[in-house]
Amino acid sequence: MIRFPPEVVMNKTDEAVRRARERSGEHLALLKEIVTIPSVSTDPERKADVARAAVWMNDKLVEFGANETKIIATPGHPVVWAEFRASEPDAETILLYGHYDVQPVDPVELWDTDPFTPTERDGRLYARGASDMKAQVMACLLAVRTLVESNALGMTVRFLLEGEEEIGSPNLAGAIEANADLFRAAVCLNLDSGMVGPGIPSIRYALRGLAYFDLTIRGPSRDLHSGGFGGVVHNPAQALAELIAGMHNADGSVALPGFYDRVREIDAEEHARAAAVPVSAEDLLAQSGVPALWGEKAFTPVERIGARPTLEINGIWGGYTGAGAKTVIPAEAHAKISTRLVPDQRHSDVHAQLAAYLTENAPPTVTWELRQLAGGEAFICDPNSSYHKRFAAALTSVWNREPVFSRNGGSVPVAADLEQILGMPSVLSGFALPDDRVHSPNESQDIATWYQGIEAVIRFLAAESA
Amino acid sequence: MIRFPPEVVMNKTDEAVRRARERSGEHLALLKEIVTIPSVSTDPERKADVARAAVWMNDKLVEFGANETKIIATPGHPVVWAEFRASEPDAETILLYGHYDVQPVDPVELWDTDPFTPTERDGRLYARGASDMKAQVMACLLAVRTLVESNALGMTVRFLLEGEEEIGSPNLAGAIEANADLFRAAVCLNLDSGMVGPGIPSIRYALRGLAYFDLTIRGPSRDLHSGGFGGVVHNPAQALAELIAGMHNADGSVALPGFYDRVREIDAEEHARAAAVPVSAEDLLAQSGVPALWGEKAFTPVERIGARPTLEINGIWGGYTGAGAKTVIPAEAHAKISTRLVPDQRHSDVHAQLAAYLTENAPPTVTWELRQLAGGEAFICDPNSSYHKRFAAALTSVWNREPVFSRNGGSVPVAADLEQILGMPSVLSGFALPDDRVHSPNESQDIATWYQGIEAVIRFLAAESA
Repeated sequence: MIRFPPEVVMNKTDEAVRRARERSGEHLALLKEIVTIPSVSTDPERKADVARAAVWMNDKLVEFGANETKIIATPGHPVVWAEFRASEPDAETILLYGHYDVQPVDPVELWDTDPFTPTERDGRLYARGASDMKAQVMACLLAVRTLVESNALGMTVRFLLEGEEEIGSPNLAGAIEANADLFRAAVCLNLDSGMVGPGIPSIRYALRGLAYFDLTIRGPSRDLHSGGFGGVVHNPAQALAELIAGMHNADGSVALPGFYDRVREIDAEEHARAAAVPVSAEDLLAQSGVPALWGEKAFTPVERIGARPTLEINGIWGGYTGAGAKTVIPAEAHAKISTRLVPDQRHSDVHAQLAAYLTENAPPTVTWELRQLAGGEAFICDPNSSYHKRFAAALTSVWNREPVFSRNGGSVPVAADLEQILGMPSVLSGFALPDDRVHSPNESQDIATWYQGIEAVIRFLAAESA
Repeated sequence: MIRFPPEVVMNKTDEAVRRARERSGEHLALLKEIVTIPSVSTDPERKADVARAAVWMNDKLVEFGANETKIIATPGHPVVWAEFRASEPDAETILLYGHYDVQPVDPVELWDTDPFTPTERDGRLYARGASDMKAQVMACLLAVRTLVESNALGMTVRFLLEGEEEIGSPNLAGAIEANADLFRAAVCLNLDSGMVGPGIPSIRYALRGLAYFDLTIRGPSRDLHSGGFGGVVHNPAQALAELIAGMHNADGSVALPGFYDRVREIDAEEHARAAAVPVSAEDLLAQSGVPALWGEKAFTPVERIGARPTLEINGIWGGYTGAGAKTVIPAEAHAKISTRLVPDQRHSDVHAQLAAYLTENAPPTVTWELRQLAGGEAFICDPNSSYHKRFAAALTSVWNREPVFSRNGGSVPVAADLEQILGMPSVLSGFALPDDRVHSPNESQDIATWYQGIEAVIRFLAAESA
């Protein structure tokens, strides 16, 4: 009996990987094309661009061989849906999640190159959304396309591509509820969680939730001359600062009443898993550039990011902010305040807790107004499911190293939505790196890591027999 | 001997007043002309407009019969000087002070009409600078012009018109020192202090000093994703808020170390004078629109504004301030912070005190930078001088009521500069009203009050025998 050497009996999966490698230039060109669309979901003036990104995604899904696609309107930005049927009947169905919207670019003057003109430099592709998460979405599309062409798609693949992730997915739960049959699947693969470090494939089994607020403090009926009224009027910017200062305790914990009431404790297994994550205080200092770390002393930095809730001032403004001196007492001062939540907190509770804090602590010399702009629950799942193992195997075969399992400090509302509405678990991973500067100026995607990511998705979705 | 009735033996002063009344329309047209020039001294893009305002002033001084004028360049905006010699030799010399620069207009969207298109409404002239202090400057120019035409100018009048008052007069002391002989006079009449209420002529005998700062708090090297770093990075906006909150004590006093060390106590005479000022807490509530007053409980509102130092947040900004939600930890946060100072504080001491506060209280998790943008000392003088009495008599003859003597909470650096450099006292008064909204949107000047003001200046400057 003649035995061919292994490189010659290349199976269909390996063949698909080879095909993907051959086409890496074309793949990168497609990624460059989609990042040119400034799909900033929070900016009303970009509404048409967000819609254009949805149409682009739909066009590519059709072109790549989807059996069916739909653009589902919502009260906000649309959801793109598609289905690619598996080569074999009775195959499982998997949902591939992605978002095609991006964060705003400001402060735009800090970008070295235009945020929507993709630029290659030192093996990275610089553009807003390159890493978060257009490269991740494209890894899914390109893996499926390659498998379809190789006749090796091992699962029926459904896509859920949304355009509101960066504003907290306010309309996604409604769209899932209204189209439950379209989105049903055994599991969701969600590549919106990155790697803990270069060359360290990573799977996340938890995400923090989010509650985002806009707080306005009002004092005088107009900006006042600080000479004429300084001493008898409580400056709203000062009152805002005083209220913000009171939102944390001296030990770094959040001071809102009841904030920790429902927080799930970190058990021994979780402590051990966090301790195994290869991210040190030094890594975080280097990644952030701060002179010293901060936060709850009773927890490690990895635990503080993944398993503890936080409260952040995302923006603050009031009074004169131009060049030089202007001696006013501002009529108003504003802050954007968000909390990152962990199981089993509820974002609606946090709204009530923040309002209660303000009721208790705001002085009678000012008035306040609190609006919730976004909310999503935290997510946690069993990292030992068969899908987690299968994705871990795919990552291991590409990186030649077992993935790290960790919690993710970020928020991806869809994971909680899918679990609550459809009972669907999620495998969270991705190919973004900690220094990709997501949400910041000069966002970029490491291109070699992205090519590896496409291969990992191919191996995960390939037919077992392929 | 035939005696004519009083109205027929009108003296030269009354004749000048009559002439001014006849010309009120022309006077208002001139005021409208000067307020169209957007002489915003703090804005580098308005530099040419500020220069244009200086030239306009110089042209009018020449046209109104000045014996000599000069435009004196400084490292910043120019000083306009002029001299009108008295009708009689051996007359005293008086310096008339004014500033031709104005505050910025923002927030411009809160103006009902364009800030540089003068608009008459309900007896008021709306425009930036109308009240502060172009109407006051024009009252001086028009009074002098009228007296010159009536051959009744009782003093040699020198003008000092500067273009940097709204940025703290950084170059004025240098210009006075370099041209001491031009500016020397028995007293300075300075109309940059307004009236305590409608129909209440007012003389101020004290001004607060000013020290203005720009504070930057820096944390991470760039804006960070609040999910990826929230919990281990001290948010610079939060750190700024914490530092600002600590700048006041719970009793409303300023917490900078040593801030009150040199503050001159309010003696019994001063307490009595403050108690006589007809401004109540209700007046201040109505003028400011705040829900409740604030400040040092141990002092009356009038004392807090006039005789006590304050610290104000004039502006604050950092992070995302656009529409919607953006989940960043900002790299930097900023505040514009000013203090109003009383005798015998020194603005350079306050710079050191604020730096010492930051050194002591800024956490190691952030860095800070403090710049002083402006500084001027407080001013106080004897309200019983002969010049105060003479101006009080002029006010009394116009309003038929004796003026109130009070301290002014605002800052006019020139008064301290003239006293320190030339030993020159100042009579501080003016025809602005508390609801003129100086430094705010919809600034205006009450036109009837302004006409009365022109008459008061005429009576003050008229020859005793006229």
